Amino acid sequence: MTFQEKVQAVRSKHEALLTRKNEPIEGNGIYEKYKFPIITADHTPLEWRYDFDEKDNPYFMQRIMMNATLNSGAIKWNGKYLLVVRTEGADRKSFFAIAESPNGVDNFRFWEEPITMPEDVIPATNIYDMRLTAHEDGWIYGLFCAERHDDSMPNDLSAATATCGIARTKDLKTWERLPDLKAKCQQRNVVLHPEFVNGKYALYTRPQDGFIDAGSGGGIGWALIDDITNAEVKEEKIINARHYHTIMEVKNGEGPHPIKTAKGWLHLAHGVRGCASGLRYVLYMYMTSLEDPTKVIAQPGGYFLVPEGDEYIGDVMNVAFANGWIADEDGKVFIYYASSDTRMHVATSTIDRLIDYCMNTPEDGFYTGKSVETIKALVAKNKRSLP
Amino acid sequence: MTFQEKVQAVRSKHEALLTRKNEPIEGNGIYEKYKFPIITADHTPLEWRYDFDEKDNPYFMQRIMMNATLNSGAIKWNGKYLLVVRTEGADRKSFFAIAESPNGVDNFRFWEEPITMPEDVIPATNIYDMRLTAHEDGWIYGLFCAERHDDSMPNDLSAATATCGIARTKDLKTWERLPDLKAKCQQRNVVLHPEFVNGKYALYTRPQDGFIDAGSGGGIGWALIDDITNAEVKEEKIINARHYHTIMEVKNGEGPHPIKTAKGWLHLAHGVRGCASGLRYVLYMYMTSLEDPTKVIAQPGGYFLVPEGDEYIGDVMNVAFANGWIADEDGKVFIYYASSDTRMHVATSTIDRLIDYCMNTPEDGFYTGKSVETIKALVAKNKRSLP
Repeated sequence: MTFQEKVQAVRSKHEALLTRKNEPIEGNGIYEKYKFPIITADHTPLEWRYDFDEKDNPYFMQRIMMNATLNSGAIKWNGKYLLVVRTEGADRKSFFAIAESPNGVDNFRFWEEPITMPEDVIPATNIYDMRLTAHEDGWIYGLFCAERHDDSMPNDLSAATATCGIARTKDLKTWERLPDLKAKCQQRNVVLHPEFVNGKYALYTRPQDGFIDAGSGGGIGWALIDDITNAEVKEEKIINARHYHTIMEVKNGEGPHPIKTAKGWLHLAHGVRGCASGLRYVLYMYMTSLEDPTKVIAQPGGYFLVPEGDEYIGDVMNVAFANGWIADEDGKVFIYYASSDTRMHVATSTIDRLIDYCMNTPEDGFYTGKSVETIKALVAKNKRSLP
Repeated sequence: MTFQEKVQAVRSKHEALLTRKNEPIEGNGIYEKYKFPIITADHTPLEWRYDFDEKDNPYFMQRIMMNATLNSGAIKWNGKYLLVVRTEGADRKSFFAIAESPNGVDNFRFWEEPITMPEDVIPATNIYDMRLTAHEDGWIYGLFCAERHDDSMPNDLSAATATCGIARTKDLKTWERLPDLKAKCQQRNVVLHPEFVNGKYALYTRPQDGFIDAGSGGGIGWALIDDITNAEVKEEKIINARHYHTIMEVKNGEGPHPIKTAKGWLHLAHGVRGCASGLRYVLYMYMTSLEDPTKVIAQPGGYFLVPEGDEYIGDVMNVAFANGWIADEDGKVFIYYASSDTRMHVATSTIDRLIDYCMNTPEDGFYTGKSVETIKALVAKNKRSLP
């Protein structure tokens, strides 16, 4: 093959992938997963990866390999479905890049260049898992995790700190970096609530003892912030705690910011448990009150969505994670989740079905005996209603 | 689709799964694995998961999601092949439920309701991995693990204790709970031997230092019990120990109770080793003497059965586990194993082949040099016998 034939073959294959039609698959009635992942490392622009100058790249080889596209924030923007994708190169560093779709389920295409995120005082080694919030103050905020080596432990190459980075934008292209969130402990999975509460900015937080371990801390917290341009967690209240032998025994954290509905705020979160092959990440839901967003009004037991089939497999096995969803005006909901830290998927549902799920799924009874009672009660109810 | 059409679609799909024919696949000559798993979460009754009342469940969504069907005890009962399935809901709690097949390899169908297991003094958070033993005293016993939070460590949400729960039944529907096994340490994988030994009940035990770690303990133990209605391990003898750099370096434990044959007791057990992606669980076999069931008379080296292909993948990766098998009167053996804590499979063999396997597979030499010698000895033997 000539150089130009190689280029043509790669371009054709890429275009076929980008324009591949997606379709829903049957499921549990609560949501539909889709046949294909929506964004993979192969979806990243060829211009990021190949040098197209035959003189400099005679074998037409990739010069910069892309490894994964995962935990993406989401927003509807000028009628398009936009994800701010955690994109990870072969060098293990991740960064943010926007991918855009006309319908939310396929034909995602990256913008020309990844986002240059301005630095805070100390440059971050890695940034990831941005939550997008179009706040009622008129800005679009991106809160993300900024990770740096923990220089207080010079002999441990892997010692790291997790801090909440804060940036804002009007066009998703140019970002203003605000000072990182000040807090008494490490923070990951911090999310900005879209409305002022008592005239203040409100954050969902996830206090933790160390970089990986939630330790005796953990749970989804809530904190009011006086000044977002100099944000500091002064008081933190746990609104959604962990429990022994649940899907969130080891850790839990807020996903994207909650969706406002007539019945309350709909929340999507992740729960983590340990097992003999490491940690297992799954998604769960809960609802909070419109009058008091710190008050949980519905908490369906168990998980909402888990890795299945090929989703189990990837750089970090056994992970479903979501930090982005979009609610359309007609009530359709697009849930964007990553599987095993490797690629992005979508599941679709509606506001009505998700509220029904939250309100009518039995709560966790915390004991096997309670679970059996709950199942037998449903069997008995079905005996009465079935002919 | 109308509500009734949705119901019909779900029912048809479920029935097709339940009646799917299974078939053996070629293997190592020792046993045949089968093309399809025999029981998955999708096999659980629809009445456990869906509310069939249109008024209460207008979208026909699952109300109680089932997550997995795994480590099952087994027994032949009124000519049917019965598994007492560890069934796990989306809430991570597992319980026991009977599934029944006419032929042991497909058409497994759950009984109408899960088993309500009476509690011991302190309710269990979770119960799992029941071993069924039709004892010569006339009862069918179910020994299982009862897990509770370790309240001596209030700051560690994940601290747990593993105890052997004991229950018995005549019909597999109504169970009498006996007091949990008293022992000096935590116990998991405890199995009741089907015969009296010196007029006493006999248990295979697995003493361990902590909830997960076998620690300096471990190995398959043997204990005689004076009174099964108030069972206490007083003396424990290790009959099958762990070894460095074997498939049972980290842990091992008895599977189902051994099968009595003319040549000795056939044992199926699991061995565990560590690796960079966690623990790897595999099955192995050994034989004990009819005259002295604590005396190992055959121990083939290495594993008997491991996860392959899709079996590698699941909630806990890289696990093959068995706590149930059935020996038919004609000598056919049905080995029921779970893969990766997610679904149940069957492998079939015969008493004669399993004895031949145990008696004629070289023992583990514990050193690479011995393994090479063993292979070369077989090559030399083959040179002599081959034309």
